[in-house]
Amino acid sequence: MNTIEADFLPAVGTPIEAVSTPRAVIDEARVERNIRRVQDYMDAHGLRFRPHIKTHKIPALARRQLAAGAVGITCQKVSEAEAFASEGAEDILITFNILGPGKHKPLHRLNERVARLSVVADSGATVEALGAAFRDALKPLMVLVECDTGGGRCGVQTPEEALDLARRIAAEPGLRFGGIMTFPGAGAHERVDRFFLDAKARLEAAGLPCPVLSSGGTPGVFEAHLVASATEHRAGTYIYNDRSMVRAGACGWDDCAMHVLATVVSRPTRTRAVIDAGSKALTSDLLGFADYGHVETWPGARIASLSEEHGVLDLSNVEGDGPAIGDVLRIVPNHTCVVSNLFDHVVFHRDGRVTEIVPVAARGLVW
Amino acid sequence: MNTIEADFLPAVGTPIEAVSTPRAVIDEARVERNIRRVQDYMDAHGLRFRPHIKTHKIPALARRQLAAGAVGITCQKVSEAEAFASEGAEDILITFNILGPGKHKPLHRLNERVARLSVVADSGATVEALGAAFRDALKPLMVLVECDTGGGRCGVQTPEEALDLARRIAAEPGLRFGGIMTFPGAGAHERVDRFFLDAKARLEAAGLPCPVLSSGGTPGVFEAHLVASATEHRAGTYIYNDRSMVRAGACGWDDCAMHVLATVVSRPTRTRAVIDAGSKALTSDLLGFADYGHVETWPGARIASLSEEHGVLDLSNVEGDGPAIGDVLRIVPNHTCVVSNLFDHVVFHRDGRVTEIVPVAARGLVW
Repeated sequence: MNTIEADFLPAVGTPIEAVSTPRAVIDEARVERNIRRVQDYMDAHGLRFRPHIKTHKIPALARRQLAAGAVGITCQKVSEAEAFASEGAEDILITFNILGPGKHKPLHRLNERVARLSVVADSGATVEALGAAFRDALKPLMVLVECDTGGGRCGVQTPEEALDLARRIAAEPGLRFGGIMTFPGAGAHERVDRFFLDAKARLEAAGLPCPVLSSGGTPGVFEAHLVASATEHRAGTYIYNDRSMVRAGACGWDDCAMHVLATVVSRPTRTRAVIDAGSKALTSDLLGFADYGHVETWPGARIASLSEEHGVLDLSNVEGDGPAIGDVLRIVPNHTCVVSNLFDHVVFHRDGRVTEIVPVAARGLVW
Repeated sequence: MNTIEADFLPAVGTPIEAVSTPRAVIDEARVERNIRRVQDYMDAHGLRFRPHIKTHKIPALARRQLAAGAVGITCQKVSEAEAFASEGAEDILITFNILGPGKHKPLHRLNERVARLSVVADSGATVEALGAAFRDALKPLMVLVECDTGGGRCGVQTPEEALDLARRIAAEPGLRFGGIMTFPGAGAHERVDRFFLDAKARLEAAGLPCPVLSSGGTPGVFEAHLVASATEHRAGTYIYNDRSMVRAGACGWDDCAMHVLATVVSRPTRTRAVIDAGSKALTSDLLGFADYGHVETWPGARIASLSEEHGVLDLSNVEGDGPAIGDVLRIVPNHTCVVSNLFDHVVFHRDGRVTEIVPVAARGLVW
C-alpha cells in the first residue's frame, strides 16, 4: 500500500460514514448473496458458470466464486490473468484476441503455469500469430472461436466462418480447437442458440468436436438457460450489481453491493449541491442514463454533471432543504466495473462497519 | 513498479509502435514546447502562472513547469498535494473545499511541511471546520474564498458573500484570508473581472487586503490577460493538450503531446474494426463529441462505441480497406486528464523512440 493512501484508509470497525471520501465500499453480505443466487441458478439449470473478474479485479473474491461452484474464471487481458494465476486460479478463459507487441511471451509463460488456459480468436491473423508463438510449445494453447451473434463487437459473422477458423486452429501444431464463444447482444437467446447449433453441427460433421459453447452477460444472467446449446455462461457485474442492472431487472437496489461514498462539500444555491466525487470516482459512463449515478440517500437528487473531482447535484426535485454541507451520500454507480478500475483499494464492510481494506490487485492492468 | 506491469513495459530506445497496447505515450518535445509557450505568454502579460498538476500527476513534469517560471502548483486533493510535496513542491494551492472524515489531520501536517500552502472555501461550514482543525496550529493556514463567476460549480454567489466569508476566515485564529479564486465558465472574462473588482473593493474597504485574485482554465489560457484584475492564472490541460483543446482553438494537432496507442485486434466486417482500447484506456468522457477520440492515423475512422477493453470503430467514411488487424493506431483522446488517471505508468518518447517509463505518482489519489 502506498504510504499516502495508508493515511486516509480507515481502521477495521470504523462506521463507513466515517471513511474518507470519495471511496468505493463493498457490502460483504450482499456479495455473498449475489454469488450464491447466481450459482444456485446455474446449478439448477446444469450450466457451468465462469465469472468474469473484470468487475471486482480481486483474487479473494474469485476464490469465493470458485468455492461456491464456479468452474473457472474469465479475464479480458493477459495481465489480469497473470494477477489471478499468481493467486491460484487454475482455469482461465481470456475472452480477447491476444495480438500486438509484447503479449505472446507472457501468454506462453502463463499457459505453462495455469492448468487450463483458453483464449479466443476471430480471425486468421490472430490464429496465425498465436500459432507462430506456440509452434514449439510443450503444452498447446486452447483456442475458442469468437462468434458475433448480434453483439456487434468482435467475432466471426457466420457458422461457416467459425468452421473455417476452427480448421485453421486445428491445423496449428501449438494450438488446440476448444469450442466457440460469444458475447451476445441483449435478449439474443434465440440468435445465439441458432448460431451455436449450426456451428456445432458443421464442426462435428467436419470431425472437430466442440466441447465448449460459452455464452455470457449479466443483464440476462437469469435467462442463460434459454440458450439451450450453451455449456457455460460468463457474467461479471452480478457480484456487485449496479444501477444499470436494476434497470435491466436483474436485481433490486438491495442487491447492489458497491456504493460510492461522497461528501457534500458545497451548497452554492438552493437547487445545487457539490460532492467530492467526480469522473475520477464515478466515471463518465452513462449507459443510457441521463445522470451519473443513483443517490440512494436523497431520492430526487440528480448527479447532473461531473468534472474530475466534483459532482454537481441538481436538487430541483428534492423536497425540503436537501443535503447539508458535510453530509455523506451513498451512491449506486451506473456501472460498477469501471468504478473498480479507479480505486487502488476498496473498503469491505458488514452492516456498515469496516471489515477489511482490500487492494484491487488487477486494477490498471490494461495491456 | 508492479512486477506484472514490468513485463509489459518497453526498453528505452524502443520505437513506440512496438510498445504493448493500450498505452498512453507522451511526446517530450511537445511537452517542452507547450510549457514554454504558455509560460512565455504569462510572462509577457505579467501574470503569475500556477499550473494544475491534475493533468499529468507526475512530479518531474511539475519541476519542468516550475523551472520554466511557474510560481507554484495547483492540486485538487490533499493526497495529490502530499505526493507533490514529497517531491519538493514548496507553493501549493488546493482549489477544493477540504471537508469530511480524515482530511484535516493530513492537511495540518502538510501545512507544516510546505512553505506556502493555500486552500479555498465557499461556505461558513468549510471555514468553521478548517478553523477548528487549525485553532492551535503554530503556522496558520492560508484560505482563499472561492467565487462562482458563472462556472456553475462551487463558489459564493456574490461579492457581498465573498466579503462575509473573508471576514469569517480572518476571525479564525488558525486561518489567514489570502484572496479570492474562481473556476470560470468558458469566455467569462468580463464577468470574472467584474466580480473580482467588486469583491476586491469591498474587501479593501473593510480592511482586508486581497493579494491573490486567481483565475483559471486551459481553453481560454491565451485570453487570461483579459481578466485584468487577476494576479495569477491556473491551467492544467495545456501541457498535453487534447481533442477538446484543438476544438477550442487553444492548440493544433501538432501540439497534442499525449496519444493513446491501440492495436487493431479484429475486423469483423468491412465497416467495423475493433481496437484494444476501451473505456479503461480512453475513458467515456465525450465532452460534447459524438465519439471517443481522434484517430490520427486513419482520418474518417470514428470510435463509435466503447466497452471496457474494446473500442469499436466505424469505418463507413474511410476510403479503401481501412486498418488491418495488427495495425497500431495513434489516438488523441477527448480529455487527456482522465486518461492520465487510468495508467500507473506512461511512456515518454522523443521522435517516436522511448526515452523513459514514468510512474503517474498521484494517480488514483482521489481522496
